[in-house]
Amino acid sequence: MEVIPIHLDRESSGFDLYEKINKNKEKINIEDNDVLVISSKYLSISEGRVKKLTGIKPSSQATQASKLYHINPKIMELILRESDEIFGGLYGFVLTSVHKILAPNAGIDKSNVPNGSVVLYPKYPYHSIEILKQKFMINSWKRVGIVLSDSRILPMRKGTVGIALACCGFEPVIDLKGTIDLFGNVLKYTSQNLADCLASIGTMIMGESDASTPVIIIRGLNIKMTDKPVSSDTLNIDSKFDIYVRGLSKRNASYYI
Amino acid sequence: MEVIPIHLDRESSGFDLYEKINKNKEKINIEDNDVLVISSKYLSISEGRVKKLTGIKPSSQATQASKLYHINPKIMELILRESDEIFGGLYGFVLTSVHKILAPNAGIDKSNVPNGSVVLYPKYPYHSIEILKQKFMINSWKRVGIVLSDSRILPMRKGTVGIALACCGFEPVIDLKGTIDLFGNVLKYTSQNLADCLASIGTMIMGESDASTPVIIIRGLNIKMTDKPVSSDTLNIDSKFDIYVRGLSKRNASYYI
Repeated sequence: MEVIPIHLDRESSGFDLYEKINKNKEKINIEDNDVLVISSKYLSISEGRVKKLTGIKPSSQATQASKLYHINPKIMELILRESDEIFGGLYGFVLTSVHKILAPNAGIDKSNVPNGSVVLYPKYPYHSIEILKQKFMINSWKRVGIVLSDSRILPMRKGTVGIALACCGFEPVIDLKGTIDLFGNVLKYTSQNLADCLASIGTMIMGESDASTPVIIIRGLNIKMTDKPVSSDTLNIDSKFDIYVRGLSKRNASYYI
Repeated sequence: MEVIPIHLDRESSGFDLYEKINKNKEKINIEDNDVLVISSKYLSISEGRVKKLTGIKPSSQATQASKLYHINPKIMELILRESDEIFGGLYGFVLTSVHKILAPNAGIDKSNVPNGSVVLYPKYPYHSIEILKQKFMINSWKRVGIVLSDSRILPMRKGTVGIALACCGFEPVIDLKGTIDLFGNVLKYTSQNLADCLASIGTMIMGESDASTPVIIIRGLNIKMTDKPVSSDTLNIDSKFDIYVRGLSKRNASYYI
């Protein structure tokens, strides 16, 4: 397994991501079966998902919620627009679900963009990277996998790991049956989220680098490439079946332990 | 960055882990600044943390809880003994904290051990890997980092990633200040959990391999080696400050959203 960082210019408004990667300064060539880990923020910016806050008018619901969570009302308005579910929150953030992914503040990010602007998640992340994958196929004759990465904190942990906002081109959830125990006694998870592991490698290398490194190539992986469609249901579990959401949201109930 | 799997014999009772790694069949030599990702289960087995269920007598509390969560009473008894906190649960598992790490069923594992036995987490994981690190230093003159890995599911995700049960020999949580937004509006995490990212690489490679691969070497990382002591407080956040535990446990409160 080889990990190759691609340093690209910082951007603050729309651009062609395929051209950018394909014509990178270092002339790193994409090869068959490479997996590209791409910063979700970089894709967002390429798609013009940068919002100026000046034009945002908070609704009364956003204004109310902004007081409860101590969040800028304009940003709270965007959070409400972007989220498909809101679970609750603390001072300065709310736990939401966007594209069925659990994200703080709907994934809205203020860092590294012009002052007074924020970056939203890509509108159709699976669609965007599928198109990108097809461009590599059609223009460069290369069959690649893509992972769109964001950083995420694990429960009760310090610091972030990577999470795949979307992926395509390979089987992202690997069945580990056989090493596994079924039902009854101790629950052992039966599958591995390869996409999230690759996202963690990506964010680790992106984070290490001083230069702007929004794309990482992971080469030589022993993974199963596929053109099967991947959707948010491939990677995500509905909140009503999730062990954390269910296990933790019952804390206020009357347990005897 | 290079990733080298070390295939070792399966074991079901105590053995010397240092000797095992150092005298591996493939004669892979450990080098300075290598990070070894070691399966927590393999370390547990090396330390004899395999428990036969026949000898376990469930307390009345364990019996009661076992009915609530549909868990074998003997295993429930072990869960109660191992856990420092219990948050709640669903059918077949309870969310607990062990060594301040959020773990389902106190990390107790039934797979790949003799029938009727379970593997517990190592008793003193930080101590164990510190000793192991020192053995590499004293006997082999090599300065290594160690990550003790387990698999863990992310909230609302399918499949597992890696988590570091403990680590030593390097700075595990990297400050990302500068790319970060402070206070007030959108919360952006300020640090990266390198230990968890490395654990994800480890579990990914361990899981891919057909052979028994409880140890992975990660070589050529650009990380800061250190002999500073690492403890569970380095990697973990107390449940009362955690965004998931707090954010989700308030779900039953009266939110207007």
